[in-house]
Amino acid sequence: MNIYFLLFDDYETLDLMGPVEFLFRIPNVQLHYISMKGGLIKSRQGFFIQTASISDLPERSVLVVPGGQGTRELVKDELFLAWLNQLVKSAQYCLAICTGSALLAATLQLTHKLATSNKLAFEWVRQVNSDVRWKTVARWVRDDKFYTSSGISAGMDMTLGFIRDHYGEALARKIANQTEYVWNDDPEKDEFAPLYGY
Amino acid sequence: MNIYFLLFDDYETLDLMGPVEFLFRIPNVQLHYISMKGGLIKSRQGFFIQTASISDLPERSVLVVPGGQGTRELVKDELFLAWLNQLVKSAQYCLAICTGSALLAATLQLTHKLATSNKLAFEWVRQVNSDVRWKTVARWVRDDKFYTSSGISAGMDMTLGFIRDHYGEALARKIANQTEYVWNDDPEKDEFAPLYGY
Repeated sequence: MNIYFLLFDDYETLDLMGPVEFLFRIPNVQLHYISMKGGLIKSRQGFFIQTASISDLPERSVLVVPGGQGTRELVKDELFLAWLNQLVKSAQYCLAICTGSALLAATLQLTHKLATSNKLAFEWVRQVNSDVRWKTVARWVRDDKFYTSSGISAGMDMTLGFIRDHYGEALARKIANQTEYVWNDDPEKDEFAPLYGY
Repeated sequence: MNIYFLLFDDYETLDLMGPVEFLFRIPNVQLHYISMKGGLIKSRQGFFIQTASISDLPERSVLVVPGGQGTRELVKDELFLAWLNQLVKSAQYCLAICTGSALLAATLQLTHKLATSNKLAFEWVRQVNSDVRWKTVARWVRDDKFYTSSGISAGMDMTLGFIRDHYGEALARKIANQTEYVWNDDPEKDEFAPLYGY
């Protein structure tokens, strides 16, 4: 299986890197780091990663979309959204972390589907596409081929949930134990929602 | 305050990136990504990050040392250890995640100090320097200016512990809440030790 991590300037580091750590441990996967134009892409935390340009995904691909400050401009960027739309359509599964769900929502492919997002940005995300069935209380949500998570760290719990769904509970637990990660394994349990009035 | 993240080929991604995400959120910090020779450095998970070369740290610096497969060769690399030794000496605080503690141990600056490491590699780490007071059951350990954590994800809990120690509980909680991170905040509570026979 091929897993494509989508980068853009000012993505949030842990949104991407938590899923990288866990998905790497699935047997027989290939990881790819991509961006619209390729080249060096800067994280919100200031480091540059080398990326490849790509416009279509092979069969049985997973697309991982982080959130972060960079999404604020990208939801209005028609060229970027057309590129992303093509990737999303060709992906077998699509995982969006934090405000990455705003990017998926902006392609209209989340319309009428259940999804969640970062609590600190939820009202902004909602107005990007109010026809998504936004769920404010959730660690993560799955609807069809789309997985979306709450803010930043929730992406790690969702990634293990994705692995459980498709590779079994035993592999998800093995990866959590290898990485000494205390997995918050219930997608419905969201201890942060009340802090932010949800 | 300046925070220096030390990179080397085949470091473990989340060892580094969890601390990056949290330390970035301390007010008035500057983050730096460094390696012995500078240039592009490859993570165990296959992406390349641009780094700067540096041989000395300014006052009030924090040095963050990840672990990973790359440490296996580096504990025998005299040139690398001499370089690391200089950095460790000039750092005000030094945080090592996972088998990053093996690198600190190899500089001899951890000798007679309390420290911990990744459970899956503990016997290897111990033989790098058996005069460190290795503690096998701990989420993380502080001794003097050194913080060391258990495997991979434990580095995130330790980083919030470091922030609590030096900037107060309120900032540590605020960062955990901003990032929707369920902080395992007790350094003594280690649910993984029994899994690995410790």
